[in-house]
Amino acid sequence: MVGMICLRACSGLVGFRTALSLRSLHSFPGITVAQIDEEVAKLLELKARLGGDDGKHQFVLKTAKGTRDYNPKQMAIREKVFNTIISCFKRHGAETIDTPVFELKETLTGKYGEDSKLIYDLKDQGGELLSLRYDLTVPFARYLAMNKITNIKRYHIAKVYRRDNPAMTRGRYREFYQCDFDIAGQYDAMIPDAECLKIVYEILSQLDLGDFRIKVNDRRILDGMFAVCGVPDDKFRTICSTVDKLDKMPWEDVKKEMVNEKGLSEEAADQIGEYVSMQGGMDLAERLLQDQKMSQSKQACAGLSDIKLLFSYLQLFQVTDKVSCVIVVFDLSLARGLDYYTGIIYEAVLSQAGVAPVSTEAQNGPPGEESVSVGSVAGGGRYDGLVGMFDPKGRKVPCVGVSIGIERIFSIMEQKASAEKVRTTEVQVMVASAQKNLLEERLKLVTELWNAGIKAEVMYKKNPKLLSQLQHCEESGIPLVAILGEQELKDGVVKLRVVATREEVDICRADLIEEVRRRTSDAS
Amino acid sequence: MVGMICLRACSGLVGFRTALSLRSLHSFPGITVAQIDEEVAKLLELKARLGGDDGKHQFVLKTAKGTRDYNPKQMAIREKVFNTIISCFKRHGAETIDTPVFELKETLTGKYGEDSKLIYDLKDQGGELLSLRYDLTVPFARYLAMNKITNIKRYHIAKVYRRDNPAMTRGRYREFYQCDFDIAGQYDAMIPDAECLKIVYEILSQLDLGDFRIKVNDRRILDGMFAVCGVPDDKFRTICSTVDKLDKMPWEDVKKEMVNEKGLSEEAADQIGEYVSMQGGMDLAERLLQDQKMSQSKQACAGLSDIKLLFSYLQLFQVTDKVSCVIVVFDLSLARGLDYYTGIIYEAVLSQAGVAPVSTEAQNGPPGEESVSVGSVAGGGRYDGLVGMFDPKGRKVPCVGVSIGIERIFSIMEQKASAEKVRTTEVQVMVASAQKNLLEERLKLVTELWNAGIKAEVMYKKNPKLLSQLQHCEESGIPLVAILGEQELKDGVVKLRVVATREEVDICRADLIEEVRRRTSDAS
Repeated sequence: MVGMICLRACSGLVGFRTALSLRSLHSFPGITVAQIDEEVAKLLELKARLGGDDGKHQFVLKTAKGTRDYNPKQMAIREKVFNTIISCFKRHGAETIDTPVFELKETLTGKYGEDSKLIYDLKDQGGELLSLRYDLTVPFARYLAMNKITNIKRYHIAKVYRRDNPAMTRGRYREFYQCDFDIAGQYDAMIPDAECLKIVYEILSQLDLGDFRIKVNDRRILDGMFAVCGVPDDKFRTICSTVDKLDKMPWEDVKKEMVNEKGLSEEAADQIGEYVSMQGGMDLAERLLQDQKMSQSKQACAGLSDIKLLFSYLQLFQVTDKVSCVIVVFDLSLARGLDYYTGIIYEAVLSQAGVAPVSTEAQNGPPGEESVSVGSVAGGGRYDGLVGMFDPKGRKVPCVGVSIGIERIFSIMEQKASAEKVRTTEVQVMVASAQKNLLEERLKLVTELWNAGIKAEVMYKKNPKLLSQLQHCEESGIPLVAILGEQELKDGVVKLRVVATREEVDICRADLIEEVRRRTSDAS
Repeated sequence: MVGMICLRACSGLVGFRTALSLRSLHSFPGITVAQIDEEVAKLLELKARLGGDDGKHQFVLKTAKGTRDYNPKQMAIREKVFNTIISCFKRHGAETIDTPVFELKETLTGKYGEDSKLIYDLKDQGGELLSLRYDLTVPFARYLAMNKITNIKRYHIAKVYRRDNPAMTRGRYREFYQCDFDIAGQYDAMIPDAECLKIVYEILSQLDLGDFRIKVNDRRILDGMFAVCGVPDDKFRTICSTVDKLDKMPWEDVKKEMVNEKGLSEEAADQIGEYVSMQGGMDLAERLLQDQKMSQSKQACAGLSDIKLLFSYLQLFQVTDKVSCVIVVFDLSLARGLDYYTGIIYEAVLSQAGVAPVSTEAQNGPPGEESVSVGSVAGGGRYDGLVGMFDPKGRKVPCVGVSIGIERIFSIMEQKASAEKVRTTEVQVMVASAQKNLLEERLKLVTELWNAGIKAEVMYKKNPKLLSQLQHCEESGIPLVAILGEQELKDGVVKLRVVATREEVDICRADLIEEVRRRTSDAS
């Protein structure tokens, strides 16, 4: 009976698949995508219950698409990067919070514009409808509103989830870390905003990723620009999304999208084209304040004045004047995708992307997009309205923040470290023996070391070979070996061997702990 | 039309609910739980599309059921606990890995016995069927098999997900941390197993949670005991699950479940009852090896010999002899729920639970279960078969590990810290001014401090009041204030104020960094 169902279901599936590959999904009559999904899910579940195609369980040993495990070497690199970032956040006086990996589905609704389709939903197993968090900013705003917090400076390092096309060699995953630093509170203009850029500057400098630039712009300048160029009010956001593609597409294609897809007049598009080609510093802001057209927009002027103020604070923070190399650039083409920004926006870009060219893994994604690497490693901006969206009375809490694109940084660091030997443990000493029947003595000695706070290891064998014990030290970079033998036990000493030099010296047992500490003081 | 569907669907739901509350689910004719779930999901989705009950969006500002945010104070406590645990893991030479928060659904299938119903599934949005991880052990085994790793000593600290009845005041959440330490590899008996217990001992001692005991048993002893007591082979696992309830139920109820629900003979149950009341040390293992009945089981004897060996290693590791207080107890009633254990099992229990009695939050759960707190804070065991379940050729990798029940520990630490003032930042000095128009000077000075690695803050106001600057220091425990004024700038000094004593001293600007370091050397 079960076999019969299976046969029916499976042959049905095959016919179904063929049909789908022959016609486009949308022209398939009388069936919706949701219905198909449902049918497929039912068939797959049936298949799973029946134990796979041939009645035997065909198990696929892999991680979910777009995700990866971190092995110990990758974790060691990750720890180093996190330590650099966290000490920067702490140096600037930030607290930290954590929020759950999933939120009520409606908490995320209406916050991400077109990107909402990339949100992972949980299956409805009864109870609340939940979604995996898409970023850390919306949960942060929800946290502020829920706890009625009006000012805080916090960092949050955690994984977020996007059902995007993965490009794993470039550090684009479906599960990835975000490192966010945000300042919430009613403060004087551009002071917290400038500190966010100072933080990006410190982190990227300390991680030693090569030259980088920080592009800045302001949503008010963009909106003002759209207004004076004749973009209708209701097209601001969609035209903004198109401008955002300028780092991946040439102007000609962006213009085509504006005119052909978004229905903008050619004249308006050309006017925008002139502005978005502009880059500069405080002088450009000054010039645009005098610009006959731009100066007609009150909000553009407010944004331009703030850009000027920002540059003056960045000078005090020593972000600009590094060996006459321009770090921060006012760039009118910077738009950023997310809906919630209301003021200044910024993005840090590495000058040489530093990431390997497209490999097999990346070819799942659209090839056009893959071949252009922008090397963006940090981004953020001001979002003064988001918390108010969660507050029952709409009370606003002004916020500005930055998110460090840590996965791309991991990718670069991993490539740098691929040839190097990276230690994955911090063991200072291995307790070994050259003779048989000394397990008990080894266990006693390693206990003494552990109890004194020394990082120590012992092989889990009754009678391990000395060679294999020494080999383990070489492989995992353990600098010292404490060797026990009948003679050493009789003399009350331990033979301490330096792995690198093979030098051996007898140490009085009572002095061993001090000696190990002394010799590994920098490593511990 | 939509309204009509809604009306029909909703009135249907009401009738449905009433029916359910009148009869038990299992006796409800002609409908399965899955069908109910499906219907409910459809109705809820319809409701969501229609925008809630009254057509107006009623937004609920909360975290998902059974989850919580961590505020900065809780994070500070969490960081302290993690540091203690991680340094213990590192002291024992462990590496660390990370795995994705979700796995292919089939990776988790068949690993958790009856608990599988608590797994969170992701919605099928096309592509792979995914589930949130239920523990870190199964992903670890998948990782080993996938990467063909035959030996590793690793720790993994990450969140896991269970759709259980939350009891948040007792530290039972649907999203919670696990801190796992595992040793994989073919080694001599009981040496890695003993190290796991040493680690539990070190961590619980260092966290200063009060007296605790570690119960140990062995799945082979349990199975042997079931065999000699006349439990049929196919009932071993289900009877084992019932024995596992002995820490929450009196023997009488456990026996009743065995006889009435699981169909065991009264005689067999009574024989089991005798054994599971036994507790002791190495001597009990010795006695049971001589026990006429128990000694008939070969696997029980193997387990008992290993228990003896374990106690001898624990003595060498100094886990037993702490002021004549018995820490490790051989307890035949310890069963542990999970299917995958094959050898030694253990569980650490706090003597005083240390957690507050049932509060409102906990009353969602069944009251009977809530009122008995066992204070279990760590558990684990040997699972030699799990990796083989993932290996295409069934190659086994013996493993033993321990999981620290960190959420319960957090709850206890939070209660302890509830009265204390816990610093949530590490700021060493606040740059302040008493006069107006000194923002630029403050920004310059704080930049000097940041660039020297000093943790420093400045208020984001052009002209903050001195009082509010000092107040911020009091509130967040910042020990020092560097005060700038016209006079100080003229004299090339900074007025350094000690917040605790209100003492003020002029420091030459060039010496400020050294002075701050000197005065905060223990805090930085």
